[in-house]
Amino acid sequence: MLSLFTLRGVISIWKEINLTSCDRSQLIDITAQVAAEVARSGIKNGLCTVFIPHTTAGITINENTDPNVARDMLNTLEHLAPHKADYQHAEGNSDSHVKASLVGSSCTVPVISGQLHMGTWQGIYFCEFDGPRNRRVKVGVFGES
Amino acid sequence: MLSLFTLRGVISIWKEINLTSCDRSQLIDITAQVAAEVARSGIKNGLCTVFIPHTTAGITINENTDPNVARDMLNTLEHLAPHKADYQHAEGNSDSHVKASLVGSSCTVPVISGQLHMGTWQGIYFCEFDGPRNRRVKVGVFGES
Amino acid sequence: MLSLFTLRGVISIWKEINLTSCDRSQLIDITAQVAAEVARSGIKNGLCTVFIPHTTAGITINENTDPNVARDMLNTLEHLAPHKADYQHAEGNSDSHVKASLVGSSCTVPVISGQLHMGTWQGIYFCEFDGPRNRRVKVGVFGES
Repeated sequence: MLSLFTLRGVISIWKEINLTSCDRSQLIDITAQVAAEVARSGIKNGLCTVFIPHTTAGITINENTDPNVARDMLNTLEHLAPHKADYQHAEGNSDSHVKASLVGSSCTVPVISGQLHMGTWQGIYFCEFDGPRNRRVKVGVFGES
Repeated sequence: MLSLFTLRGVISIWKEINLTSCDRSQLIDITAQVAAEVARSGIKNGLCTVFIPHTTAGITINENTDPNVARDMLNTLEHLAPHKADYQHAEGNSDSHVKASLVGSSCTVPVISGQLHMGTWQGIYFCEFDGPRNRRVKVGVFGES
Repeated sequence: MLSLFTLRGVISIWKEINLTSCDRSQLIDITAQVAAEVARSGIKNGLCTVFIPHTTAGITINENTDPNVARDMLNTLEHLAPHKADYQHAEGNSDSHVKASLVGSSCTVPVISGQLHMGTWQGIYFCEFDGPRNRRVKVGVFGES
């Protein structure tokens, strides 16, 4: 019975990915690293949550085939919250904070049959809005092993 | 003991809903279908995550009583990321990708007493930004049966 | 074996926080209340989801040190979806609904070693977009005790 319990148990794992951005605004595709953490977790069915512990960076899921999609996204976000505008926060990165909240600080993706289960054209992008910097990404996997 | 274990076990279920949009931009209320999957899952307490496996569609939770709320939302998003503008992506749907990231690709809702537990005025909207198309929605339910 | 099962069991808990906003648009830091619910849950490893059951309020994670960050966020959102504009919804709060969808109705944060595990500068903000009002926040904690 103990082995039966272990086999059907629910696991909850958090891992950390480190990355370095090279521009002030940049979308960095982290799909492969997240998928690797899901595979390593041994979890067969559940969900994966990616969390960004920073206030001037975020996370989004979008097309990762044509790099122009990422460029258009950054340009549009810059139009919505320009780097230079009439802000009160004195550090010169108010736009970065606003952009982070517009895309959000986490994303959640299905885990099915032991794999990250996304759409054909989807990738997970770390969104740098105040780089270049060293950054951290928390990857959580939850479900049945 | 085995039955006690089964009764208190944690379940993780993913189901798929299919739908067809009929406009380029459209909010489609899928609350009833998501609630039905939660009821069918047999899960009494936990959470429900709705995930969109597309890059030109998203998901949001908002008022589903007055249809003008949905219209104002689509009009405002069109103002923020116009269909026709100076984009680099050649497929003519850069605005759709941006709108998808602004609303996000998943939402998470409480499951309490075996039911989707939302506010009185809340509905779950599939957000079509590049229709008309056939689309898929992944509904995950996690928790104690 | 029963105690071993209990020790390694997975728990799923939903609690409610009540708060009162005092402005039409206001970011209210609820990090301490959410962290207290996580501590009270006894869950050591998993995730915490904060859900807003309202359609004119949302939730976001951002810097909670300099209050100007919150002011710049509200001012930028007001620029993106002005209170007074050409809306069809007759209640005069279309902008509030749009802002709610832009920031989102839930956030998810890691729970590690029994604590809410966020970045150094991150706080959880309840986002009031149509106050002043009495509001509710659902806090869910899921994981291993």
